[in-house]
This record gives sequence, structure tokens and C-alpha cells, in this order.
Amino acid sequence: MFLRNQWYAAARGGEVGRSLLRRKILNEPIVMYRTLDGQVAAIEDRCCHRHVPLSIGKLVEDRVQCAYHGLEFDRRGCCVYAPGQEKLSANARVKAYVAVEKWQLVWLWMGDPERADESLIPDFSVTEQPGWAALGETLHLDCNYLLAIDNLLDLSHIAYVHARTIGTIDVARTPVQTVREGDAVIVSRWMQDVPPPPMFVKLGGFTGNIDRWQIARAAAPCYVWLDVGGAAVGTGALEGRRDHAFRRWNLNCITPETETSSHLFWTEVRNFGLDDPAVGESLRAQMALTLAEDAEVLAMQQQAILDNPDAPEIDISFDAGAIRFRRMIERKLAEQEAQAISART
Amino acid sequence: MFLRNQWYAAARGGEVGRSLLRRKILNEPIVMYRTLDGQVAAIEDRCCHRHVPLSIGKLVEDRVQCAYHGLEFDRRGCCVYAPGQEKLSANARVKAYVAVEKWQLVWLWMGDPERADESLIPDFSVTEQPGWAALGETLHLDCNYLLAIDNLLDLSHIAYVHARTIGTIDVARTPVQTVREGDAVIVSRWMQDVPPPPMFVKLGGFTGNIDRWQIARAAAPCYVWLDVGGAAVGTGALEGRRDHAFRRWNLNCITPETETSSHLFWTEVRNFGLDDPAVGESLRAQMALTLAEDAEVLAMQQQAILDNPDAPEIDISFDAGAIRFRRMIERKLAEQEAQAISART
Amino acid sequence: MFLRNQWYAAARGGEVGRSLLRRKILNEPIVMYRTLDGQVAAIEDRCCHRHVPLSIGKLVEDRVQCAYHGLEFDRRGCCVYAPGQEKLSANARVKAYVAVEKWQLVWLWMGDPERADESLIPDFSVTEQPGWAALGETLHLDCNYLLAIDNLLDLSHIAYVHARTIGTIDVARTPVQTVREGDAVIVSRWMQDVPPPPMFVKLGGFTGNIDRWQIARAAAPCYVWLDVGGAAVGTGALEGRRDHAFRRWNLNCITPETETSSHLFWTEVRNFGLDDPAVGESLRAQMALTLAEDAEVLAMQQQAILDNPDAPEIDISFDAGAIRFRRMIERKLAEQEAQAISART
Repeated sequence: MFLRNQWYAAARGGEVGRSLLRRKILNEPIVMYRTLDGQVAAIEDRCCHRHVPLSIGKLVEDRVQCAYHGLEFDRRGCCVYAPGQEKLSANARVKAYVAVEKWQLVWLWMGDPERADESLIPDFSVTEQPGWAALGETLHLDCNYLLAIDNLLDLSHIAYVHARTIGTIDVARTPVQTVREGDAVIVSRWMQDVPPPPMFVKLGGFTGNIDRWQIARAAAPCYVWLDVGGAAVGTGALEGRRDHAFRRWNLNCITPETETSSHLFWTEVRNFGLDDPAVGESLRAQMALTLAEDAEVLAMQQQAILDNPDAPEIDISFDAGAIRFRRMIERKLAEQEAQAISART
Repeated sequence: MFLRNQWYAAARGGEVGRSLLRRKILNEPIVMYRTLDGQVAAIEDRCCHRHVPLSIGKLVEDRVQCAYHGLEFDRRGCCVYAPGQEKLSANARVKAYVAVEKWQLVWLWMGDPERADESLIPDFSVTEQPGWAALGETLHLDCNYLLAIDNLLDLSHIAYVHARTIGTIDVARTPVQTVREGDAVIVSRWMQDVPPPPMFVKLGGFTGNIDRWQIARAAAPCYVWLDVGGAAVGTGALEGRRDHAFRRWNLNCITPETETSSHLFWTEVRNFGLDDPAVGESLRAQMALTLAEDAEVLAMQQQAILDNPDAPEIDISFDAGAIRFRRMIERKLAEQEAQAISART
Repeated sequence: MFLRNQWYAAARGGEVGRSLLRRKILNEPIVMYRTLDGQVAAIEDRCCHRHVPLSIGKLVEDRVQCAYHGLEFDRRGCCVYAPGQEKLSANARVKAYVAVEKWQLVWLWMGDPERADESLIPDFSVTEQPGWAALGETLHLDCNYLLAIDNLLDLSHIAYVHARTIGTIDVARTPVQTVREGDAVIVSRWMQDVPPPPMFVKLGGFTGNIDRWQIARAAAPCYVWLDVGGAAVGTGALEGRRDHAFRRWNLNCITPETETSSHLFWTEVRNFGLDDPAVGESLRAQMALTLAEDAEVLAMQQQAILDNPDAPEIDISFDAGAIRFRRMIERKLAEQEAQAISART
């Protein structure tokens, strides 16, 4: 079960063009494309005639033509042409999704179109802030989206999983603060006078110890902002002068594909090496390696859970943020279920 | 559920020889081979002793020897030898199928052997008619057999799926006539003064427009005759002079393998290029390409149906023939079920 | 359902070292390793925190460190370290197995650790007897363990499956004697004046006929001793002088992995060519070939049973031993079930 009436990232803007992009979101098959005026359209990826995925068809102007019998659908999902058929019935249509392109991503409103409200799209405005550079990619994860959010809300794992890039043992040894702010859970870690991890040395040029921070903020249904960075010891980073330090925003949407798989749309926003393409490529490569390490562990974890769904588990102190987040999601799902029941009666 | 007490094509004659051919027909594992006198034998592909497929064994004269413990079965399915066993019990046998070789195909009677009647084998006599040449192949389809019959009863799809060989847009723009004749459904399309498709140009040498026809006749459980061709405009093809035109019979048996897969046995019979092997090879290559295009779409369709079996669908006018055929099959299945119930009581 | 409170072979000794060996035994994921003092440790292969297989982690002295969050478990399964956690709860532990290394194999007690009794490990002492040489391997089988035991209790199959190494037609033509001795079933075959099979010619140098024996002894839950060999005709092999003949012990533990797969741990013990490594390698290669032939047939058999679990089967006289063994296992499973019920009430 997933939260409805929410914006979910469904693609990076650059993934959608004048061809048909197939993607399953919240178990629904969706085909995305760009209309001639450059807008993103998103409709159900199943012909209402004989079920064939529309994504194996082709674009005819702004219409999707089914590969099998040539029916054509417009961006509202309406069948506007069927060979040999003069009059089309009212149910000759497929589902259409409200699509908005913002912060380099395509957002779909997975719920009642009447309730779609662009102001609810999460604030990734840092991607467009002067003095910062953004890049990102799409990664498929073989796990439920909440396992990936757990991962981001407990960064102690980077000491073990990501020693090649961003992990040092100090991360696992430093306690965190967890707070709830409205619909968001925030987990913060402040490390004083610690060795920099390999990525910081490589891209930040650190030669000695640093003061370092990690602030993870997660909001329903599946957005996570990571504010991370470091500065030479005692230069004020931990007192707030973070913009003058080596700083990265790592922005994540972990959109459910199915109950056991997800799409991770990640964006890295940095305040260093803006004019140096090599810095961007190095950062991209290190993040791709880092996230591939996560993907491998998460897939093993998901498989173990599928193999034995009733196995008991224990919690440790670092789990506090993830547990709060899951409780919030569960409460919202219960509310959604209660509303659905009351709407039926 | 499948219709029983019917002939189903199970192999092309050339596929069956002095080795063991394994094939699942109507969910039943069957092993076929040719006896020393050249007849086709077909028995259950499961040893009655310890379940091993007999098809991994070997032929010993006219008997199949199990690969595991050496039990031997004759063409009637009787176990005639078991090592270390002097007397064999009456149930030391596997199922045997009545097999008939006709029209270049091997037909199995999937039902009560007492009721097997060769006169019920569909009439593919055109394959042996003087002045015609026949060739064919076997193709595996990842879909229920009725999806493939739908495909053949609505040839409007060739305008979209087969533009490289036999499709032109006129096919999808020309209405059809649908009639029921006894246990058969016939869908006919007559096109006047239309451009020829690529295959007609290549093999028929047409330089100008043609008159063109497509007559699809489908009979239970799974046979489809396509009578197709064309002639220079106004030379009488549409008035009946089809044998003097560029004409092909495309004969199909779509035998269920499982509920979601089938064996397509197709035969092309032509009245042109009889003495030119290059014509035959070109026709075979173009049909193989054409049917591979169908197979791809049909597999996507079947998968979409499995993904969401309850998705609604709409019909269009071209579906009339396929809908009539499916209703006929449903009625026959209901009769079969009623007979089975009355036989039990 | 499997018999509990039994020793099951889980690895060859040489397979377990200072890395983490993952293996599923009786449906339970287990990780094995060798502690610094050379002992074998075996604990549950699932972190009690967030389910990740411990086997993808690493060894830190005698502890397994989880790859994800760094929790550490000792050989008793106790979590002895969790980052950021000062005090660990009593349930911070995974299952531990009593492990004993004996007869070149690692044995796990799959049941109540209190009842683990080393004297119940099957007697494979022939592997350590002076004048004999032992070698062995681990083979994965895609079948239920009882299908593999059936295989060893009816050696008539070697006439058909293993004609390249140990099979001759005489094996399938010679009757057997079946007896029950306590918890074991013994099937014996004595062949007089028969041609030697290829392996015997190759490694035993036989030029004429031999007297040959096969004695298979199977004990619950899954151990099988094969005492096989041959000698020149009339030199007393069948009267008991087997140690002076060409003789091999083939010792087998077929440990259930799941209901439809198994681990075969086989050991060959021979009284010939002790000082000639080429003889050992030849024997190893021939057994590997022979067992690969079995594995292929057994996988086909298991698949056929899964495809049609209710298909009837007939028995032949050679099945007597296997049937007795299966009845014994069924009775023991029923006893186990009865004890479990009485323990609950």
C-alpha cells in the first residue's frame, strides 16, 4: 500500500523526450513523452482496446499510436482515433497523470487530479541557487522504498558500506540528534576534529582533520535531503558557517515501483569546483559507486526479508530516525485507509 | 480449459524422426517419434515408474527406453520391459495418443481415443493441389492461443505491425464483412485500386495499384485459413478470378501449449514461383519476419493481461469476427463441461 | 518437513576457512567460518538487526561483522558490539549451531543443542583406516534428498545412466537382497563372472571377467555407505575376501537444502593406487562425471514431480530398499510430530 495524493518523481527531465519512456510507478504502468510544445505528458501504459503497452508504439505529433491496431491517444488519455471506427465510446480512454517538470525532475501526482497542487512539490530549490552546481542520475533499487529511506536516515552505515568514498569509522562512533518537524524527521550528526573520508580529500583537498556534519531530513512520502560537508578544524563549520565550507546537498526521491522495488532519483548539488567539469565527473563517478554499494546491500536485505518475512529484528539507537519516519508513514496510510472507507459509506 | 476430442497439430512431419521429440500440448507432456515402419507414435512424456521424462531416454527399435531405470514402452504406451521384473502390473503404462500425419503435419487426438475420427482433421488439401507449392515452420508463441486467433481474425493490425512485408494503411481503412458458417467464422476484406505491400511488389512484380483481398476463415478449436492475394486493377480478382492472380493460402494451427503459450504451425501455399527456389526462400524469410513481429506483440499483450487480468477493455468494429469466434469457443467449452458433469452423475 | 535432532553434513572441512561460507541447510541460512584456533563456527546467516546476510560481511578475529551497520557476532551467535549502542538487549543474538569436524566433514546438529551427541555422527571411520585413501567433493542437487537416496538404493540405474564409468547391463539383470538392520536399510547385489565396467578396467587393470559386489547401506536421516568392488573370477571376493580385491567405499551425506534441493557430500575411499596421485585424480574425475549424470536425471525427475505432483507411479522389485527407507523416514517424522504436539500440551 502506498500514499496517494502525493507528488512522486517519475523521471529526470532529460530522460523524457520525443520517444516513449515506460516506467512503473506505484505498481501502475505509465508511458511518458514530451509533446511538441515541450511539455511532459504521462498516460497509462496499456491500450484500453487489447492491453498492449502503448510504450511499444510510436509518437504521432502529440498522440501515442498503439503498436498493435493503431489506436491513438492524446495527452489527456483520450482515444482520438481508432481504425475502422467512426464513433468512439466514452470509455475509449486510458488514465492520464498530472505531470510537472521542476528541479530537473518530472513529478507525477499519484491520486485525484483535482487535488494536484504544485505547491506541494518538495523544495529542491537549492539545485537552482547561484553559486551551486547540480547533477544527478536515476538508479533502480531491488527493494521497498522504505528500506532505502532507512538507509539514508541512518548514515552510520557509511562507515561499513562506503569506506571507499565517504565513510570513516567516526561516523559510526558519533551519536546523532533526532527531531520531528511537522511532517519531516531530521537526523543530525556533528563530528569535531575527525579525519576526512576519501571523497573529501580528493575533491576538497583536505590535508588535515576536519569538522564535519551530516543532516538528513526526510519528508513523506519519500523525499530525503542530505546536507553534508566539512571544513578545516575550528573554522566555524559546526557553528553555522557551512556555506563557506566544502558542502554538498544530496537530494533523493525514492519512488516506489512495486512493493519490492524502487526508483531512486538522486541529485548532487555542490558549492565547489563549479567551473571544473572534471570535479563534476569525479563526483558523479564516486556517487554512482557509493549508491551501487547501497543497492547491493539493499537488494540482499529485501531478499532476506522475502525469504523470512516473520524473522524478528532488534533496533539500536541509530534507528530512532527511521523508526519515527516509518511510524509517520503508517499513520498517514491509516488515515488514507480511513478516508477511503468513509468515502465508500 | 481447452476443448477435448479434437485434432490438434503437434508437429510438422519433418520434425519427427528417429529421435525423441518432447512437446507439451494442452498442458500434457508428450514425446513423439517415428517407428521403424515410418509411422508417428506419441506417448506421455513421463515414465510411470519414477516420473522422469521419457524424451531424455532413447529409442530401441520401436520402444522408448527410460533414461533412468531402463523401462521400455511401446507405441501404445505399454511398459513391455522393466529390469528385474518378470511380471508387469496392468497399470505399467503411460498415456498414448492417436497420431495421424496429414497435410505435412502431425495431428494428435486430444480426447477419448475411441472417438478419434480422421475425417475431422481440418481440410488443408490445398497444400497438395497441383499448381501450388507449400512450405511451413513451427513457431513458439508466449501467449494464449486465442490471442493469436484474434490476431488472424483482425488483419487491420498488419497496417501497423507488418509495414515491412504485407501491411499498408489501406488494410486498416477498409471495412470487413463477418459471417458465421456452421462452426466457422469468416472475415473478408476487399480492397479496390490500392498500392501493393512490399511482399507483393517483391514476389508478384506489381508496378501499379492492385485489387486485393483477405479472407480469413477460423474453425474450432484453433485452425485458421487465410486466402490472400491481389491482381492488377480491374483484372477480375474481386469478381472471383483469384486463381489467376498472385494468391497465397496461409494455413495456421495454433495449438495450446499451456494457458499462456502456444505452438503456431504455419504453412504457406502459393501459386507463383513454383519452380524458383529463391521465391520459396524469400517467402519463408518474409513470413518468418512477419510472424516474429506478431510473436513480439502477442507476448507483450499476454504479459500485460497477466499483470492486470481485471483491466477493462473496449471493442471496436474490427473485433466482430474475433468476438464471434470466442463466443463459439466459450459455448463449446460450456457444452463440454456439461457433458463431463452429466457423465459423472 | 525434515528430521530434527540429527547430525547433517554441512561442508567439507576444506571448504571452511577464514572467509565466510554461506549455505542453506534444512531451509535455514547458515554462515560457517573457522575461528583463530581452527574450530568451525556456524551461526544464522541473518543479522538480527536488519536481516542482511552476515555472510556478506567480514571476519574480525573470531567475530562476524555485519556488512551493513557493523554489528558483530561471536561464535555463540551473541551480538557483542553494535555501533552507537552501549547496552545490548538480551535478544541481540542469532541462532548458533553445534558444529563438529569429523571424517573430513563439518557436521551440524540441527535441533536442540542440549541433545547434541557426537557419538551419533555416522561412522565414516574407513576414511582414516590405514591402507586406504580418501577424497571427496560437494555437489549441489536440484532435487529433494530422498530422490537422491532412492537413486543410491537402486543401483540398477547405473546400467542406464552410467555406462561410461561404472555401469554394465548385468547390474540391471541381477536381483538384490534387501534387509533392515535397526535404523538402516541394506541392499546387496552379488554378480558372478561378469564383464568389468570401464572404471574397473581403467583403475583395476582387469582383462577378463570378474566377481562383483554392491552393498548399499542407508541410515536415517540421509547417510549412505556403498561398499563396491570386484576381483578376478573365483578368487574369493564373493566369499568375503573383499579387502584383497579392487574395493571402494563411496560414502554419502545428502543434506536437504530446501524441499526441492540438496547438498551431496561424497567421499571415495579406495584400497588401490594409494601412492599414485594419477589414480586419485582419475577416480575423482570419473566420480564427478558419474554424479553429474545423476544430478541431471534427478533434476528432471524433480521438475516432473513439481509439474504434476499427483501423477501416479508404479513400483518395481528393485524399489524395495528405497520404499523401506522412505517408510522408516515417514515413521520417524510422524514420531517427531507427535513429540512436538505432546510438548506443546
